[in-house]
Amino acid sequence: MNSLTGNCIVAQSGGPTAVINSSVCGVVQEALKHRSITGVYAARNGIMGILNADIFDLKQEDPLQIERLKTTPSSALGSCRYKLKSPEADDGDFRKIFDNFDRYNIRYFFYIGGNDSQDTADKLNRYAKKLGYDIRIIGIPKTIDNDIVETDHCPGFGSAAKYVATSAMETARDMAAYTSKTIVILEVMGRDAGWLTASSALAARDMGMPDLIYLPEVPFSIEKFSDDVKKLHSQKGQVLVAVSEGIRDSGGKFIYEIDAWSGHDIFGHSQLGGVGSVLAAFVKENIEKRVRAIELSTLQRSAAHCLSSVDAAEAYMVGQKAVLYAVEGHSGYMVALHRESQNPYKSTTRLVELSKVANLKKPIPREWINSEGNYVTQEAVDYIAPLVKGSVQVPEVDGLPVYAKLKKVSL
Amino acid sequence: MNSLTGNCIVAQSGGPTAVINSSVCGVVQEALKHRSITGVYAARNGIMGILNADIFDLKQEDPLQIERLKTTPSSALGSCRYKLKSPEADDGDFRKIFDNFDRYNIRYFFYIGGNDSQDTADKLNRYAKKLGYDIRIIGIPKTIDNDIVETDHCPGFGSAAKYVATSAMETARDMAAYTSKTIVILEVMGRDAGWLTASSALAARDMGMPDLIYLPEVPFSIEKFSDDVKKLHSQKGQVLVAVSEGIRDSGGKFIYEIDAWSGHDIFGHSQLGGVGSVLAAFVKENIEKRVRAIELSTLQRSAAHCLSSVDAAEAYMVGQKAVLYAVEGHSGYMVALHRESQNPYKSTTRLVELSKVANLKKPIPREWINSEGNYVTQEAVDYIAPLVKGSVQVPEVDGLPVYAKLKKVSL
Repeated sequence: MNSLTGNCIVAQSGGPTAVINSSVCGVVQEALKHRSITGVYAARNGIMGILNADIFDLKQEDPLQIERLKTTPSSALGSCRYKLKSPEADDGDFRKIFDNFDRYNIRYFFYIGGNDSQDTADKLNRYAKKLGYDIRIIGIPKTIDNDIVETDHCPGFGSAAKYVATSAMETARDMAAYTSKTIVILEVMGRDAGWLTASSALAARDMGMPDLIYLPEVPFSIEKFSDDVKKLHSQKGQVLVAVSEGIRDSGGKFIYEIDAWSGHDIFGHSQLGGVGSVLAAFVKENIEKRVRAIELSTLQRSAAHCLSSVDAAEAYMVGQKAVLYAVEGHSGYMVALHRESQNPYKSTTRLVELSKVANLKKPIPREWINSEGNYVTQEAVDYIAPLVKGSVQVPEVDGLPVYAKLKKVSL
Repeated sequence: MNSLTGNCIVAQSGGPTAVINSSVCGVVQEALKHRSITGVYAARNGIMGILNADIFDLKQEDPLQIERLKTTPSSALGSCRYKLKSPEADDGDFRKIFDNFDRYNIRYFFYIGGNDSQDTADKLNRYAKKLGYDIRIIGIPKTIDNDIVETDHCPGFGSAAKYVATSAMETARDMAAYTSKTIVILEVMGRDAGWLTASSALAARDMGMPDLIYLPEVPFSIEKFSDDVKKLHSQKGQVLVAVSEGIRDSGGKFIYEIDAWSGHDIFGHSQLGGVGSVLAAFVKENIEKRVRAIELSTLQRSAAHCLSSVDAAEAYMVGQKAVLYAVEGHSGYMVALHRESQNPYKSTTRLVELSKVANLKKPIPREWINSEGNYVTQEAVDYIAPLVKGSVQVPEVDGLPVYAKLKKVSL
């Protein structure tokens, strides 16, 4: 044990998830147990809150509200998408941040976020060393995209995957109510990695749908898509297609991109929707008039009403462990998840250097996608399946959820 | 007790809901208790199944699968949107239907559906009387739109309302993660009545959002919408707007309608989306670039993972009571819900003549919408609130729902 006494601060960054607040809860409840951690603070809107000294005291919050963070979606502390410049290029932000760390005697910094946020944590850790400022910086992973490297998977993914798979099951049942040969395009988030779209495959155990899955990992060909859909449409009538927002053509151009000059998409339609609408327009014109695009939009990342208990517990665990690792003396690491056992599923944590994680992205391995590039393999399904397990009952009043309300008393 | 012995048949019609199968379960489990009901059959795809003698035997189903209908979304028996001609104009369909009733000795017919389906049941009941064919016909209400007259509310509405309100809460939390002055347009189903869109108001207790609600009951003015959004956008930054798909201008023209000649919407944009996309395009051009349209699409009508226990129990009750009323000798009625007490909430059933229900639609009373026409009153919220109460745990395996699988053994 390498003793360091001072205040800790926790902050959230990047897109919301259903369990990112569970990680905050883990940090806070663990931090309160340690004598070396005196004050437990939060920065408002991620690193912006530290830059602007917009900090509030979590010890002033009702413990019940802290507990409720476990089932409160989105970023309760506020988030940001601010990217620090390299300190070599411009250390203005770094000086402000460390001035504020010093001013508030911050000796522990926990940053919850995706690839970019791990980069921020890494830069701050390296700057602290250069400066000789004694602080322990630990990154806590979160992303529905599941694309952070050096961790088996990412907190936030399991619950989003559960929502996507459940919604795909319900959509398939909805289609089956009628005899009409409907085609539905389900658009799922994921610009660079298709993990979340792949999770729709878990729904197939009910009705065999989705029938087709298109991912950013495989160059998208509209001819192949057209052939795939036409074939299934004539074979079985109804076709459910899951598609990642980030699919690209062989030239790397996003399918949803609208030509700036003509205002038209790559198939010549003028519209505002995402890739689901683009493909639905194509289907309508070329294959079947009865087509519908369903965009899961931000619903899929903040669906606390569809929490996976495995995911919620792991999100808590990485927050809690971040504090334990920091108190033990570690700094400059991210808390990664390690799949210790698949059946029964069990995970533990380990530390990985932030520099090995920062800015990198983990796509689905090509061998987990079928050779045609229009579905995932059983290995992919087996990998995802345990992460959606278990349900969490969100506290309700009169049938609707009750989320944490923080007072956010400024320092 | 007016004894009539023979087989019963149950069928589903119109759009799916999360609890329409709970009504089937109520019919079947009750029918099995009565000696006068010998066979318990289902028609595939509503009245189409009776026309085509596409009938299966529910006694051949595993009772566990019948029980699971309580938590299985969409129409497990299959649905249709077939509208019978008036028997005076063309009784071809009627003769076929009664031939099949006779062929299978059907003496009890339970039809679960909305306004149109109650009309079908009414026409069949009148035709039976003319024919002197002894049969008991009872309509069972269902619709997420909640627009059937002569009933306090409709099974299917409560669960959809719970999903809409929960999703609105989660969307508001998602918006609040960032400081950016985002505008979100949440498009909710409801072409003629705004009940489901109105239910988004239940979400306001968490974050005060949605801020604005536009309903088909009030003529929509784009100038008023623009003023409303601009005002709130400058006052509070983020604005969440809930809008019914069926809003119309003062001339009765749907806002989402695309001009057939130009392919453009009424504001000059060319697109395929619904009214949410139309309004988002308007906002983007005139008020704020950071705008997002979220269409709840079919997700809102088949979301069994967000069941209201009040709704699920009432859907079961109207099915069960339909059988009891029929066995007692009633025919030509719909089972309506009566709100016996608001606090604690309690409902009972009563019979209303099908002819008083058929084809009619119940809008939100104008006095339950504010004078500006951009929100609902507390009376509307109080009316909806008890219907979303309570949760139902859907049977799960490995974190995903397990729905009823019917063998559908044909007669």
